[in-house]
Amino acid sequence: MKHNYDNYSLVVGRFQPLHRGHMDVICKCAEASEHITIGIGSAQCSHTPENPFTSGERYMMINKALRDEGIDNYSIVPIEDLNRYPVWVAHVVSLVPPFKIVYTNNPLTRRLFEESGFEVRASPLYNREVFSGTEIRRRIANDEEWRSLVPEAVAKVIDDIDGVNRIKQISGSNDSPF
Amino acid sequence: MKHNYDNYSLVVGRFQPLHRGHMDVICKCAEASEHITIGIGSAQCSHTPENPFTSGERYMMINKALRDEGIDNYSIVPIEDLNRYPVWVAHVVSLVPPFKIVYTNNPLTRRLFEESGFEVRASPLYNREVFSGTEIRRRIANDEEWRSLVPEAVAKVIDDIDGVNRIKQISGSNDSPF
Amino acid sequence: MKHNYDNYSLVVGRFQPLHRGHMDVICKCAEASEHITIGIGSAQCSHTPENPFTSGERYMMINKALRDEGIDNYSIVPIEDLNRYPVWVAHVVSLVPPFKIVYTNNPLTRRLFEESGFEVRASPLYNREVFSGTEIRRRIANDEEWRSLVPEAVAKVIDDIDGVNRIKQISGSNDSPF
Amino acid sequence: MKHNYDNYSLVVGRFQPLHRGHMDVICKCAEASEHITIGIGSAQCSHTPENPFTSGERYMMINKALRDEGIDNYSIVPIEDLNRYPVWVAHVVSLVPPFKIVYTNNPLTRRLFEESGFEVRASPLYNREVFSGTEIRRRIANDEEWRSLVPEAVAKVIDDIDGVNRIKQISGSNDSPF
Amino acid sequence: MKHNYDNYSLVVGRFQPLHRGHMDVICKCAEASEHITIGIGSAQCSHTPENPFTSGERYMMINKALRDEGIDNYSIVPIEDLNRYPVWVAHVVSLVPPFKIVYTNNPLTRRLFEESGFEVRASPLYNREVFSGTEIRRRIANDEEWRSLVPEAVAKVIDDIDGVNRIKQISGSNDSPF
Amino acid sequence: MKHNYDNYSLVVGRFQPLHRGHMDVICKCAEASEHITIGIGSAQCSHTPENPFTSGERYMMINKALRDEGIDNYSIVPIEDLNRYPVWVAHVVSLVPPFKIVYTNNPLTRRLFEESGFEVRASPLYNREVFSGTEIRRRIANDEEWRSLVPEAVAKVIDDIDGVNRIKQISGSNDSPF
Repeated sequence: MKHNYDNYSLVVGRFQPLHRGHMDVICKCAEASEHITIGIGSAQCSHTPENPFTSGERYMMINKALRDEGIDNYSIVPIEDLNRYPVWVAHVVSLVPPFKIVYTNNPLTRRLFEESGFEVRASPLYNREVFSGTEIRRRIANDEEWRSLVPEAVAKVIDDIDGVNRIKQISGSNDSPF
Repeated sequence: MKHNYDNYSLVVGRFQPLHRGHMDVICKCAEASEHITIGIGSAQCSHTPENPFTSGERYMMINKALRDEGIDNYSIVPIEDLNRYPVWVAHVVSLVPPFKIVYTNNPLTRRLFEESGFEVRASPLYNREVFSGTEIRRRIANDEEWRSLVPEAVAKVIDDIDGVNRIKQISGSNDSPF
Repeated sequence: MKHNYDNYSLVVGRFQPLHRGHMDVICKCAEASEHITIGIGSAQCSHTPENPFTSGERYMMINKALRDEGIDNYSIVPIEDLNRYPVWVAHVVSLVPPFKIVYTNNPLTRRLFEESGFEVRASPLYNREVFSGTEIRRRIANDEEWRSLVPEAVAKVIDDIDGVNRIKQISGSNDSPF
Repeated sequence: MKHNYDNYSLVVGRFQPLHRGHMDVICKCAEASEHITIGIGSAQCSHTPENPFTSGERYMMINKALRDEGIDNYSIVPIEDLNRYPVWVAHVVSLVPPFKIVYTNNPLTRRLFEESGFEVRASPLYNREVFSGTEIRRRIANDEEWRSLVPEAVAKVIDDIDGVNRIKQISGSNDSPF
Repeated sequence: MKHNYDNYSLVVGRFQPLHRGHMDVICKCAEASEHITIGIGSAQCSHTPENPFTSGERYMMINKALRDEGIDNYSIVPIEDLNRYPVWVAHVVSLVPPFKIVYTNNPLTRRLFEESGFEVRASPLYNREVFSGTEIRRRIANDEEWRSLVPEAVAKVIDDIDGVNRIKQISGSNDSPF
Repeated sequence: MKHNYDNYSLVVGRFQPLHRGHMDVICKCAEASEHITIGIGSAQCSHTPENPFTSGERYMMINKALRDEGIDNYSIVPIEDLNRYPVWVAHVVSLVPPFKIVYTNNPLTRRLFEESGFEVRASPLYNREVFSGTEIRRRIANDEEWRSLVPEAVAKVIDDIDGVNRIKQISGSNDSPF
């Protein structure tokens, strides 16, 4: 009998960096699903104020944080951008393990998956103003407290790669090496 | 004897969506030309606030609207972006039927075709503040009256593809699925 | 009521050049369909032994030959390659007017459209050994008779663009300008 | 103290499909390493005779087969081609978790990683004539016995996705949908 | 004995256009170095308000200006963008002659080269508010005095290519031909 | 008065590696021209049996060999492939200093430049069977004598970069790191 994957789900994000708001969504989805795939969006980006961490660094953050939580029914898949939205869903489908349910609050993601016939559910809510990549990157750049907003494993990865200095150094940059 | 194509002309636009201002230009050019090619620019774009419709959807709008007007001396050609302006004219030339005259009011388009030796004419004028893709998309997103600004065939295509809801849904989006 | 496009069909090919075998398929499909879209594959290719003609030149061949046959329920759409087969069908769908039926004898095309849920029909048969782009290009390069294999309009376009000399000149090439 | 990742290793392959030869290498490396990353090469390819399976399908094969073996100190990362070899190592490094050792028998891979200062070890040997993706795809296309060459989990994934018919159908293809 | 290239240096910029501030940096570096490579960044860009000149035009400006100064221990290399910062340094390294020292004040460039182990030095200072490509393009577009800000050879190239009119014509453009 | 560049010429090649046949052509063209631009084709390629050397390495070979000959009226410009032949000439023109004459024996290069209105001249003849990149790479891979076929400066660069071992190591490769 073929596996139907009815309770396999997908969560996509940029995770710059992974924070406690993300973790909350992922943990709830992992509990509600047989299997959860975490897609790392804009995988090709790094070293910019908006996207300081490489895909490999973000992979480590997610992997370590989920293991610390005792979760193991997940896959992590980097997804490079393919800036053609009509084919974006097919692109994601080709890169990740099977899934039937998508968790997202992003309206474009919702529309694209719905037009392709997927079931889309809203992500569980959390305090988006504080648990936000933008806010965390801002705090790091300004020497404010940020460690409480991310899982411990994430803070450790950021320290290992000298991430605080990377963010500070590029925060004055105009996103181009010229 | 070789055909000289002296009176073959080109009009390019994004047509997001085709509106009565576009139609006015196209109809006048079609009348003044032996043949007119309508190039659908940024053909690879869709599902964003600026570019809600796919190239195939825009093709249908133009095709049906021109047939309703009884015009038949035209070709429609989607043109994907090639973001290297020094080769952009050669890119367009390779994709479309022959032409000698370009109708445009866009200064970059004018410059690029002029540097390549084409005759460039200003598009006939129309009320650009009302007959504007930006204005029509704004009205659709805000439930204001928009149908009078587009040919009937266009409104019908937008209804067929559930375009009003697509525009509303993605209008809050930041143009990225992440 | 929404249009259902049930009898809208798609034929794709490279048309290097359009020949009488292609015309036979297209004419039969046009008769059996309410609307037929002819997709020009590998639209970005030209000036090589395998792909001598630009997309714009091929567009002209098809347009003129179909008008000579009195067919007018068609659209022509250049399709640039997107060498990611899992998203190829979504790419084609986004570029062309709606369709429900695909005519092809190519096994990969058949598989890709079938996996995406389209109805695929075999193209009507014709003498593939003679009516073949490869054979026609070979004859042109070797000064053999080729005009009987293509519609009159196609021979005229090839003459207009000095296509015979182009094919001869590049036939010794190794497909790279270096 | 920073983690030094000295015993983190990388194995790359196309895994079309994952076979018992691959499994042998992966299991031995997983045992010898603190952590092993398996890179799925040419991740963007699928539906061709050489590359029948999508990256997502290959991800499933590897994930299920390794879990069946009781291995859990691994990460799986799809790697899209970036056909610029001087930057290929930097591309891989940016996509995957940290590593210090590369296992490969491919001379180009060896050279590229060595020029970038990585330690490269030869993969453990296995019977390459039988345990080969090429041989397995050939057997599937010709209705010969192939299931003994792959882990059970892989055969199950191939059955789930109707992979035998996909390979048969596209095996006569010339790798282009035109 | 192998050449060690210890005193070979690299300066990168967009040079839109080359101005006296650039010249000051280049001349000082050329004097302090055995060999200096000048990388023309964003080489694929032109005909926009931010990047009016082609790479070929910028090559001419630099080449003529340096010869006028009697400098000859330099190479000029156009560098097309590769918008993946983790591989950007490897991309530059593969395109240019060997170098050990990088002169830059751009924080992203500094970070990327430092993470790859290069010695990075700050460019010598000059009056950045006046000697700035942005300021020079603004003056040209507004018919203000600009010739004193660039080397004579640069003004001559700009005149030769009708660059003043190009900048004026495209300065009202929104950076897209549609 | 504008410079007319009537006697500026262009020679393009891959130079894998630069050999005495190339040098013969370049020296004769340099003598006959006011200025000669040497375009390094397929600049993005390296580390394969067909294209072992990076663009930067080839730049060094050409630069050093020409200086050894006392030639100084030249520019060297790497040219990345843009696999769209109808726009290829515009691509080259945008990257290099002005030129009016092209020296080539490649039929595709000749056709493309002629269709764009350039004067194309045949390269001076030399013994192509011996003075050939293919032959030199074959000799290096097989430990046969090759140094007499290249300028001294080229042999020195190849030694500096450990090029002999690179060619030997990758000569058994199938041109893919997987």
